Amino acid sequence: MSRAYTFFERASRAFRAYPTLSKLLVVSTVSGGGIVAFSDARPIQRLLGDHGEGECKKKKVVVLGTGWAGYSFLTYLNNPSYEVHVVSPRNYFLFTPLLPSVTNGTVEARSIVEPIRKLTSKKSFQYEEAECYKIDAKNKKIYCRSKQETTLKGTEEFIMDYDILVVSVGAQSNTFNTPGVEENAMFLKEVEHAQNIRKAVIDCFERASLPNLSDEERKRILHFVVVGGGPTGVEFSAELHDFLVEDVAKIYPQVQEFTRITLLEASDHILNMFDKRITNFAEEKFQRDGIDLKTGSMVIKLTADEISTKEKGTGKIVHEPYGMVVWSTGIGSRPVIKDFMQQIGQGHRRVLATDEWLRVEGTEDVYALGDCATINQRRVVEDIAAIFSKADKVNKGTLNIKDFQGAVKDICQRYPQVEIYLKKRKMKNIQDLLKSYEGEDQEVNIEKFTKALSEVDSQMKNLPATAQVANQQGHYLAKCFNRMEECEKNPEGPLRFRGEGRHRFQPFRYRHLGSFAPLGGEQTAAELPGDWVSIGHSTQWLWYSVYASKLVSWRTRMLVVSDWGRRFIFGRDSSRI
Amino acid sequence: MSRAYTFFERASRAFRAYPTLSKLLVVSTVSGGGIVAFSDARPIQRLLGDHGEGECKKKKVVVLGTGWAGYSFLTYLNNPSYEVHVVSPRNYFLFTPLLPSVTNGTVEARSIVEPIRKLTSKKSFQYEEAECYKIDAKNKKIYCRSKQETTLKGTEEFIMDYDILVVSVGAQSNTFNTPGVEENAMFLKEVEHAQNIRKAVIDCFERASLPNLSDEERKRILHFVVVGGGPTGVEFSAELHDFLVEDVAKIYPQVQEFTRITLLEASDHILNMFDKRITNFAEEKFQRDGIDLKTGSMVIKLTADEISTKEKGTGKIVHEPYGMVVWSTGIGSRPVIKDFMQQIGQGHRRVLATDEWLRVEGTEDVYALGDCATINQRRVVEDIAAIFSKADKVNKGTLNIKDFQGAVKDICQRYPQVEIYLKKRKMKNIQDLLKSYEGEDQEVNIEKFTKALSEVDSQMKNLPATAQVANQQGHYLAKCFNRMEECEKNPEGPLRFRGEGRHRFQPFRYRHLGSFAPLGGEQTAAELPGDWVSIGHSTQWLWYSVYASKLVSWRTRMLVVSDWGRRFIFGRDSSRI
Repeated sequence: MSRAYTFFERASRAFRAYPTLSKLLVVSTVSGGGIVAFSDARPIQRLLGDHGEGECKKKKVVVLGTGWAGYSFLTYLNNPSYEVHVVSPRNYFLFTPLLPSVTNGTVEARSIVEPIRKLTSKKSFQYEEAECYKIDAKNKKIYCRSKQETTLKGTEEFIMDYDILVVSVGAQSNTFNTPGVEENAMFLKEVEHAQNIRKAVIDCFERASLPNLSDEERKRILHFVVVGGGPTGVEFSAELHDFLVEDVAKIYPQVQEFTRITLLEASDHILNMFDKRITNFAEEKFQRDGIDLKTGSMVIKLTADEISTKEKGTGKIVHEPYGMVVWSTGIGSRPVIKDFMQQIGQGHRRVLATDEWLRVEGTEDVYALGDCATINQRRVVEDIAAIFSKADKVNKGTLNIKDFQGAVKDICQRYPQVEIYLKKRKMKNIQDLLKSYEGEDQEVNIEKFTKALSEVDSQMKNLPATAQVANQQGHYLAKCFNRMEECEKNPEGPLRFRGEGRHRFQPFRYRHLGSFAPLGGEQTAAELPGDWVSIGHSTQWLWYSVYASKLVSWRTRMLVVSDWGRRFIFGRDSSRI
Repeated sequence: MSRAYTFFERASRAFRAYPTLSKLLVVSTVSGGGIVAFSDARPIQRLLGDHGEGECKKKKVVVLGTGWAGYSFLTYLNNPSYEVHVVSPRNYFLFTPLLPSVTNGTVEARSIVEPIRKLTSKKSFQYEEAECYKIDAKNKKIYCRSKQETTLKGTEEFIMDYDILVVSVGAQSNTFNTPGVEENAMFLKEVEHAQNIRKAVIDCFERASLPNLSDEERKRILHFVVVGGGPTGVEFSAELHDFLVEDVAKIYPQVQEFTRITLLEASDHILNMFDKRITNFAEEKFQRDGIDLKTGSMVIKLTADEISTKEKGTGKIVHEPYGMVVWSTGIGSRPVIKDFMQQIGQGHRRVLATDEWLRVEGTEDVYALGDCATINQRRVVEDIAAIFSKADKVNKGTLNIKDFQGAVKDICQRYPQVEIYLKKRKMKNIQDLLKSYEGEDQEVNIEKFTKALSEVDSQMKNLPATAQVANQQGHYLAKCFNRMEECEKNPEGPLRFRGEGRHRFQPFRYRHLGSFAPLGGEQTAAELPGDWVSIGHSTQWLWYSVYASKLVSWRTRMLVVSDWGRRFIFGRDSSRI
């Protein structure tokens, strides 16, 4: 198909195709006149459309999933000796922190997704829109099917082999088998969920506005219940409250009096992974806002129009009529992961376990990152004899400070809990720890050594299932893959205490850059490194800038800014689409 | 619920609440630096939230539907002596001319809808999100139900009475009972349709990109068939072609060679309601573009993956595999209208008929406008005796030019076909017509009069089912309603030839402002009044400005412009959401 291009198209193409030109495009954002420069550096090979000459010897890396972990891995992966295939039922990356904002129309769904094809065609990766439903680790094959409800009937199935598999399929919402939740509640993990919630909220208001309804019934329909006081549940409640205050008052004035938001949390406080100050601030703000916050309240059943809870204090069972329930209590493993765990002897575990290098335990060529896996940090106690004998090079049975000097760096690298423990006890290094047991300059034997390190493992903590962790894991694994050849030759990791030589890479270390909890009304609470807590609406901008700093394209950033501009000028849209 | 507002919110509220302030907001658009001033004049009563004091005597006007006709009627209706209720399953007005642009992501769905609540709350109208499924004209009641699939289970039913009913429910896609169409084809009348088509196109490309498919199968999946060569079908084909050329080449280079677009039209030419020059231009352009245009090809059957057509010339039946079919061949009456026609003695008709004042024939208080009805223009022939006797004031049996003088204006007003006929025969007035039969200054008797006017009715033509007609009808009816009290006292319409006195209003007259057919690649063909045909891409801007000039808010205009800006900078989005 050939055609003549108009000026408009040519200009548009030029902008999109040539990064140097597009760097000239300077756009002033809505947020107070800041200047941002747009740049979309697309390598020239993309324009030439080359792929695949003499790639027969390349190792085939298959990546499952395009969430935070997978997308981050793909973004930073930069090693031409791999042939990369991506398999995911979602042909886009979703910027999840803004998902609650989609539920009430502050931001449009399309503004917070990044088409995966853009990345894969830039990097000459292959992408397949399909879901992997079975991993056959023994034969190095995955079984996939494409699921498309809209047009093409039936499912297309195919089998793909791999040399290295990177599993980053994420997790699914966990209903804890509470009866009725699957059928009656709404979830908030995917972009469709957010769109459905948006429609459902408008539905509730339209339904409640119909004539011939009793006030009782109107109250029921406009009772919004959020289950789970984690960051998602809290943010959604806050966004919903903003919508009620800022827009509903104008659009549905006649039913405004019937609206109610209830936030249910099974434990004693909301945002309980955050600093106490943030929890307090959030709880007080919700009280001021009139959000009905019920802690210590566990949902035991959901019917089409009633939610039943058991109160922790009294043990009483309470039934409440509702119009909409949003369920965001936690996550569980996907079936494909459960099945895979059975195969590799992890059937007894709750979550897929990897070692500190993100390799799945019990496999050679499978890595797992993000919410679908957890790092099984090796305990010091288990390796104490091996550590001791490595340090005791001449086999004298005791160690002095000098003997330690050589091993101490490796120990801290291999067992990060040691460092955390020392920090907590305000010690500078292991020598200090040993001294606290033995005093200066003494020889230490294995018993004393074991005793000194016995409490260290208590500092081990699983990483939270957050975007930040997944993002860093993806980045880490990509860096490892990029330097695979170098590090095979010159390993740069810590000593192998139970084996020979060194590990190829440093193990994964999570750097906490802070947690944010948007609380509505442009109020955001932040917990930053160094015990710094910040609350207020400048914090919200901080939040976006931290998240948006690396992974998200200029496109997403500008679309979101323009959505905010639209909302600022025109208000939110109440159309049910 | 109370809360403190931040500066941002206050500013935003101020802008939205006070029109004088918002008039100061000058925004420079993307399209070449044009200056537009934003103004959203919201009457002060809205802010005070008043409605319903001493309204007991008001007549209750119920409007069904929020499409072009209904929305236009509501926009211009301005008579405080009516209590207005709106019932529609769609709580927004949809700017349909841009619907094909939504199918490939040139424009976002949300940008071309206008929330109905904004209008109704501004004007203190009542709105109910429900569908009227039965009109009981005898008892002046309508039966409604709300249909909401997303959350609230079941349907809410209610009955509403009315004093005056305005039916503007539009029409539905007509499959002409072709087997398999309902199940397998996609339609393009609602915003959901456009969104589904967008998803389906991406689906087809993702499916065709999977491994293990034969080239045969890829060809099938990427064969897009459009049935119907009217403006919608043509524009959709053109938009799809643009998407394939401008975006698919980059996003799905490996399957581009398999794509094909076929446009099927049962008659001999596409766009056959347009000027021949436009049809030729469009057909040539499509040929150049490589769109497979098949005229004289009638679809007789659709299965899940095969479309069967009968060729007009040869009578041969052809089977073609396909991936997606979009059906846009024409419209048919909705069930509620068919049922209503039975009640009022119009059961034998194909379409609901109204008189020239848009009142439904056989009813007193029901008006119908837009695609759901058609004006049954009264024939001159039927009234010839009445016309003659009205003009023949002294009952002498013949008429001369002078006798005519008084009646001629009324005749032309009452029977618009007379004027069209005269224009076509290049005559100035009826006198000229009579002269052509009788020569100057002769007396005319009833036989000669009948003969002279006998061909006039051949000029009668039903109005097309377009947005323009619906829009003008809504505007017309609102103006009538606005001046109801005045015109009841001082009727300003033409003489009632078969009755006494005058009609209250002038009958509805359609003013054709031009037809537009976007042909892709920023090419639009236009047929303008005065036999002026314009083809090219400046025409496209003309098109938008004509359509957008009155009915659509600044909001929609700016959102659309910003969508174009986004597309210009970032290209279309291929995410499947």
